[in-house]
Formats: sequence, structure tokens, C-alpha cells
Amino acid sequence: MTRVAVLGGGNWGTAYAAVMADAGCTVRLWARRAEVADEINRTRVNSAYLPELTVPEGISATSDSAEALADAEIVVLAVPSQSLRDNLAVWREQLPADAPVVSLMKGIELGTGERMSEVIADAGGVDPDRIVVVSGPNLAHEIAAQQPAAAVVASASPRARARVAEASATGYFRPYLGNDVVGTEIAGATKNVIALAVGMASGMGMGDNTMASLLTRGLAETARLGTALGADPQTFLGLAGVGDLVATCASPLSRNRTFGYKLGSGMTLAEVTASTTQTAEGVKSCESILQLAQGAGVDVPIVENVAAVVHEGRSPRDVVGALMSRARKHEGH
Amino acid sequence: MTRVAVLGGGNWGTAYAAVMADAGCTVRLWARRAEVADEINRTRVNSAYLPELTVPEGISATSDSAEALADAEIVVLAVPSQSLRDNLAVWREQLPADAPVVSLMKGIELGTGERMSEVIADAGGVDPDRIVVVSGPNLAHEIAAQQPAAAVVASASPRARARVAEASATGYFRPYLGNDVVGTEIAGATKNVIALAVGMASGMGMGDNTMASLLTRGLAETARLGTALGADPQTFLGLAGVGDLVATCASPLSRNRTFGYKLGSGMTLAEVTASTTQTAEGVKSCESILQLAQGAGVDVPIVENVAAVVHEGRSPRDVVGALMSRARKHEGH
Repeated sequence: MTRVAVLGGGNWGTAYAAVMADAGCTVRLWARRAEVADEINRTRVNSAYLPELTVPEGISATSDSAEALADAEIVVLAVPSQSLRDNLAVWREQLPADAPVVSLMKGIELGTGERMSEVIADAGGVDPDRIVVVSGPNLAHEIAAQQPAAAVVASASPRARARVAEASATGYFRPYLGNDVVGTEIAGATKNVIALAVGMASGMGMGDNTMASLLTRGLAETARLGTALGADPQTFLGLAGVGDLVATCASPLSRNRTFGYKLGSGMTLAEVTASTTQTAEGVKSCESILQLAQGAGVDVPIVENVAAVVHEGRSPRDVVGALMSRARKHEGH
Repeated sequence: MTRVAVLGGGNWGTAYAAVMADAGCTVRLWARRAEVADEINRTRVNSAYLPELTVPEGISATSDSAEALADAEIVVLAVPSQSLRDNLAVWREQLPADAPVVSLMKGIELGTGERMSEVIADAGGVDPDRIVVVSGPNLAHEIAAQQPAAAVVASASPRARARVAEASATGYFRPYLGNDVVGTEIAGATKNVIALAVGMASGMGMGDNTMASLLTRGLAETARLGTALGADPQTFLGLAGVGDLVATCASPLSRNRTFGYKLGSGMTLAEVTASTTQTAEGVKSCESILQLAQGAGVDVPIVENVAAVVHEGRSPRDVVGALMSRARKHEGH
């Protein structure tokens, strides 16, 4: 029975903890707020984030990170991207020395432009060979309902990725192995921004052709950016690329798509922000991704337009306009 | 004013004729049934296939193919895949000598295993350099509503593809140029089969993770098959690959998805076939694609399972099962 610490009691942290418990692991789940941990231990429900799940008995919750991390053989990190560095300042000394550290997070740090695995290595003092990234079409609410899904478990270390895949394989959750950490993370972070764009188009009343065209052009710019940063282009064709992007853009459950939808349907940025309780990662990451792209000399028109809408108040119409108005040319360029 | 002949008055032939008319072409639209042509000319409506469209004035309809083809500068073919060869036996002598011939069709011929461009070259006596394939996320009903969409216009001939792209560019329809005819056609034909699989999962009550996982694994096997047949792997990341697949799988308007949905929800094959008026191309193409794959030594588990459901009466549950039960391994292999 592998001992696992999952740090982060939001909907994905909680759902992934349930996957690992169902795969036979003993899981300690850290929640920032003591009342969330208490509720899980008392009632087997995380009503704030994933109310429909009956939390498996193999999970015990705590708001004490040292308690969660003690003797853990695998550590899973699932906090909002922009708070990871601050959290690691506390957790750094508590992390077990040799355990693989799994990132479930999909964002790029503002200011530094670092991917989450880079923040983990840097602020957590974790050897890159121990870091594993899990990503794919994994809407938390559907995983909690045990609907069949697949994911990529990527790491530079064959041993670390095999260990994590083994510890999270269940009848409804199928891990595939991968070695492209950079591509998996760039795909995960950028898909939130593309989902904002797709949501905007949908909120403006556009249909599935427009959605699919934006998604595809968004994937193309993601692949260009990722490849420039050292990713394997094939990753973008896979579960962490197309798969995650499609699930996010198709689902009314997606926070980023919903945020974009509200903007597209005419709400102001202030109104949308006020109506949003959980983090829409793309709203912050679009800025840092744009900076990464500019640094790499890669053209990312959809990300650029989303950033202008979300941060400069430009009209969502321009996002769709950007897709349609550029000079006719070859698809790949 | 470019003179265009569009042969095929189904929903995509009619919608694409409208795009070309809106782009400034003079279009003659051939419909097999005289009453469809008459209705279009009298009332500007094609009530059987695309009732919501007001057919532009630049289109005149006829059921006489010689009349449609006389003096055409571009010929567009939009008939059911399995009837193309028989149609070409008639049209072969009527085709203008130098006009680009555009295929809008997405299928693989039963028996021969030929792509539509191969059938056009072979049965139509058309030089491959004149053949152009148009494909992308192009649900006919949304194109008819002038919702923004993009497409690939692929040909071995730079001149032919530029000519066709120019003649079909409008404010709502954006052509991108491509040169990968093989990849564009394999992607188009196989997506109908993947849409059948996705429809089955949806009919069984599965959500967006399962849909996206099936779609992604389906895209991977499409790319493996296409690459083995000489396609450029990048095509599958583009509008004719991911784009078309996503639009088809997301849309309740898709015939193939709907056909699969009915099977997944418990209807028998006979019941579904009896309830279906328009061709679901994937039902026939899955057999010929499977043969192509076997000939090329490529493993296509989703296509294989769909063929077993559609032709051997196996349970749709096996299609989803096939996704989840294979040995854990690297994603790309």
C-alpha cells in the first residue's frame, strides 16, 4: 500500500486523491482550510469543491502539511499555480527526500515565466528527475463519477513515471507514460487560454465550426510555442494536448470556458470576476504565456488577443476577428 | 466571375455552393433529383437537405450534369463516397479539360480501398495535379448560417489550390492552403468512424473526458495510418485533422455521431439504419479503412471495434472497453 500525500483539496486534488485511493494507495489529503479537512474526515464529503463525491475510506484529510507529508512515498501537488512558490517555501523542508513529486497544476508563473515543474525544482529544491507531470482530459467532476478517462504521466525519469502510473491506474482511469515534461506543461497551461477564447466565441453565439477552428488554430500556436521551448511536437497530438483541450472546450464544467463565455455574452470583466469563485487559471497565465512566446519569438495571436480582452478590456469580438482576418496562407506557418 | 459547377445537392454541396456564390462565383448546382433542382430555382430553398438557407441568386440548379459542367472553370464534387465511381462514369466525358476538380467527399471506396482523389483520377480520367481536396470543421448547417469557420484547401498543385482558395474565400469562410492530399483525405474519412465511436460513448451516458480520450486515441491511430500511407503527420494537428474531428464529435448535427449515439443508447443496428435518412459515411468507410490499415500493418483498435459493432453486431460497450483495457504503455506507440 503506497503512502501518498496530496497537497491541495480543490476539485482536482480531491478527485485525483480518490483515484489513487481506488488504485489501492493510502492517501493523506492536505486542505488549506481546516474546516474542509474536518468535513472530509467527519462526513466523507468535500462540499465546497466536489460535493458529489463520497470520499473513499483510504483518504484521511488534514490541514497540517507536515502531517500529510510524513513518510509519503509519492507527493502530489494541486494548488493554484500562482500560489505554488509560497506554499513550497513552507513545504520544502517537509518533503520526503526521495519521493516522486507529481504536479497536477496547469499554469505558468507570473514574473518568472516558469513552468510548474521549474517552480517545484527551484522553490522546492526537488531534483528534476523526481518530478512527474500528470495531464489529460480529466474534468474533476467526471473523474469523481468514475467515467472512463485517460491521462499522460510524464517525467524525465522512467522509474518515477512508472511508479506514479502504477499508483494511479484504476478501472476508470488509464495512465499512459510520457517523457515530454515541457510539452505536457505548455499544453496544459495554454489550453486554459484557448478555452477562454472558445468560451468567448460561444458566448457570442458562435457554433461548433468556430469553436473547432479556434481550438485548432490555438493548438497550432501552442505547438509552435512548445516546440520552440524544446517540446516534442507529438505531445500536442496526444492526451495532454488535443485531449485536454477538447474536454475543456466541450465542457460546460470548465472554469476557463465559462469565464470566457460570460465575457462573450456581454458581461464586463469586473462582473465576470465578481461572479467567479474558483480560479480560472488562464486569466493569469495568458500574460506569462505571452511573455514566454515573445521571448521565444513565436507568434501566438489567440493568446495575444485573449490577454488584450482579459487585461486591457478589448472586445471579445477581436478574438474571433483575429482568427478570420489574417492573410491567407499555408496552415502550418 | 469564375464559373463553377457543384455536383451534388446534399447539405454540404449546397452550403459550399453558397460559399462560392458569396465569394463572387457564378455557380451551377447539379442535384440528382429534378424536384430538388426545380425547388431551388423556383423558391431559393433546398428543403430536403438545407432548409434554413436562402440559396444565393448566384446559384442556378439543374439535374442535367452536362448543363452544369459546360464551360465550368472549377468543378466541385459532393456526392456520397460509394456512388462517386458510378457518377464519374457518366461525368467523365463532360468534365472540362483543364478545370481544377475539388473533392468535398470524406470516405474510402469499398473494395478498392481508394481515397476519393484516387477514384477521381482513376474513374474520372483527371490528372492528379488538377485535384483539390477541401476539408475542415465545416458543419454544413453552420456554414449556411455564415458562422466563422476555416478549412484546408489541399492539392499537389500550388496553382490549383490557390485558384480554389481564392474562389471560396468569404468574410465567414477562411481557406488555408495545404499540400498534403493523402493526410487530408485519411483524416476526413477516419473522423467519421471516430465520431461513431464518440457517439456510442455519449449514448452510453459517458461524459466529456471519455469523449476527449476516445477522440485523442482515435486521432493517434488516424495519424499512424496516414503517416504509413505517406501523409505529413502535421496534417492531423490541423483543421482537416483535429479541427474536423472536434466539430463532428462536438456537434449534435453530425450524422455519424448521431448514428453512434443511437447505437450506444441501446437501439439495434437495424433500428438505427431504419431511422437514418442521410448517409453516415463512417458506417461504410470503417470497413475499407480497416482493410487499408491491415494492408499497411497499422493497429487501429477504435476503427476495428467500430467495424465490429456496425457490421458484426458486437456491443458498443466493447468500443469504450477497448480504449481502457489495453496494457499500459507509452502514448505514441
